[in-house]
Amino acid sequence: MAKLAYLNGEILPVEKASVPVEDRGYQFGDAVYEFIQSFNGRLFCLEPHLDRLERSLAELDFPPVSRKTVRQGIEALFDRAKIKQAGIYIQISRGVQPREHAYADNLTPQIVMTIADLEGEIPAEYQKGIAVRTTQDYRWGRCDIKTVQLLPAALEKRRAMEEGLADTIFISPEGMVREATAANAFAVIDGRVLTHPLDEHILPGITRSVVLALCRELDLPHGEKYFTLEELYGADEAFLTATVLGILPVIRVDGHPIAGGVKGSKTHSLQEAFKQKVEQGG
Amino acid sequence: MAKLAYLNGEILPVEKASVPVEDRGYQFGDAVYEFIQSFNGRLFCLEPHLDRLERSLAELDFPPVSRKTVRQGIEALFDRAKIKQAGIYIQISRGVQPREHAYADNLTPQIVMTIADLEGEIPAEYQKGIAVRTTQDYRWGRCDIKTVQLLPAALEKRRAMEEGLADTIFISPEGMVREATAANAFAVIDGRVLTHPLDEHILPGITRSVVLALCRELDLPHGEKYFTLEELYGADEAFLTATVLGILPVIRVDGHPIAGGVKGSKTHSLQEAFKQKVEQGG
Repeated sequence: MAKLAYLNGEILPVEKASVPVEDRGYQFGDAVYEFIQSFNGRLFCLEPHLDRLERSLAELDFPPVSRKTVRQGIEALFDRAKIKQAGIYIQISRGVQPREHAYADNLTPQIVMTIADLEGEIPAEYQKGIAVRTTQDYRWGRCDIKTVQLLPAALEKRRAMEEGLADTIFISPEGMVREATAANAFAVIDGRVLTHPLDEHILPGITRSVVLALCRELDLPHGEKYFTLEELYGADEAFLTATVLGILPVIRVDGHPIAGGVKGSKTHSLQEAFKQKVEQGG
Repeated sequence: MAKLAYLNGEILPVEKASVPVEDRGYQFGDAVYEFIQSFNGRLFCLEPHLDRLERSLAELDFPPVSRKTVRQGIEALFDRAKIKQAGIYIQISRGVQPREHAYADNLTPQIVMTIADLEGEIPAEYQKGIAVRTTQDYRWGRCDIKTVQLLPAALEKRRAMEEGLADTIFISPEGMVREATAANAFAVIDGRVLTHPLDEHILPGITRSVVLALCRELDLPHGEKYFTLEELYGADEAFLTATVLGILPVIRVDGHPIAGGVKGSKTHSLQEAFKQKVEQGG
């Protein structure tokens, strides 16, 4: 079957889905997005994703977008595509306007979705872990809003791959570990599972919050706390989280082996608990 | 006549010009642009704009784009539209690819252009000047590359207008005056015409470089030198430069009157010299 897309209420082959060149998403990156995954035919954490989408829209002063319309669009695309393990990409731009920096008030947000089949073997990286590099964060100052201002993430993901690595982690000017190009970063330091607190520099990841909840359920000491790159180099364990990744062990950072270069035990426990949660439907 | 667009070699009404939803310009802001103006039926500074476009493409590791193709496209659109004082917007995205942060190697850059009629009365602001606000710079760290990572510029232009102001100037964390949302910033301090040096935080503006050249021709003391917001508040004169603006006097910053709230004499001399240059065709 042709790959499908959703465009303002209509489902069509992705090759036929196009947007006007004066869409502000195209000319200004004036658009927000979400990525939702399904497991065993069920959408995982749909409502938290819709919550975050609404927050993104509100932070950017978008015209109203009906949550019901978006949810129905997601469900319609998901039903039509009949993919058990699907990845649904949802992008909403502010609308179409002759090019001008200041946005007009009367715009109609454009809603676009694509769906992909993510079924496949579980990558070996879930057991053996990944190696990453770091770079100073040069993204914009509102990475808490899930927008398409993604060029630095795209460039740094590509640079990682060119170096035979899986990803790049952004480091603050003060040396704090922020997040990877499309994933939150965790480290186990002095026995505690730590991740960057929510602020304007990281995405409030859905999987991140699921993992923090699992830490509570599993009685793992944990916290939202800034930590440095030096602390990451010396961490007991490290991992990334994202909707499309789940929990991915990090075993090497800038060439420094983490936890002796093998997946740590807390990472393993969280992976197992996450797998259970996913199988239960979230 | 319908507003025209150029799309990968074809000229068509702008309403019919659309791009695939999986264009990386749409999903990642993975695109660069230029804006070229014509005066009296002649394109102004076409080659410097093409130089900068080539630099943007190279900095982002885009696949090769023929300068000749772009130039011919611009000229064809300009000839067809028959607009004497035209603004031509040129956007080149890296290409179309199923959504993935890391870009593939074999993409075909998408070339899109629109053209608008900028003819009209000279706005009163060229004589009476504009009032602006400032905000701490939260844009990405490569504003020297002319990309569509423009959401902060769009938001801050709109915020200025909501406050009845003309624009917003971005200030560095160290308190240095960088540039406005789509214009370079100049100040006359201790008799010298100053502007932010070229680095990763400002656009290498074409009009900026024309103005520096005019300072040399007019024997005005000048320099590329960092200056603080406090120095701007106390400046003798201030102005913005951009292709679409030319030289626009700034007479109020964050409520502080500059030069007693009237256009300064050096600004006036530069405006006159710029006008001459434009009439001569650059």
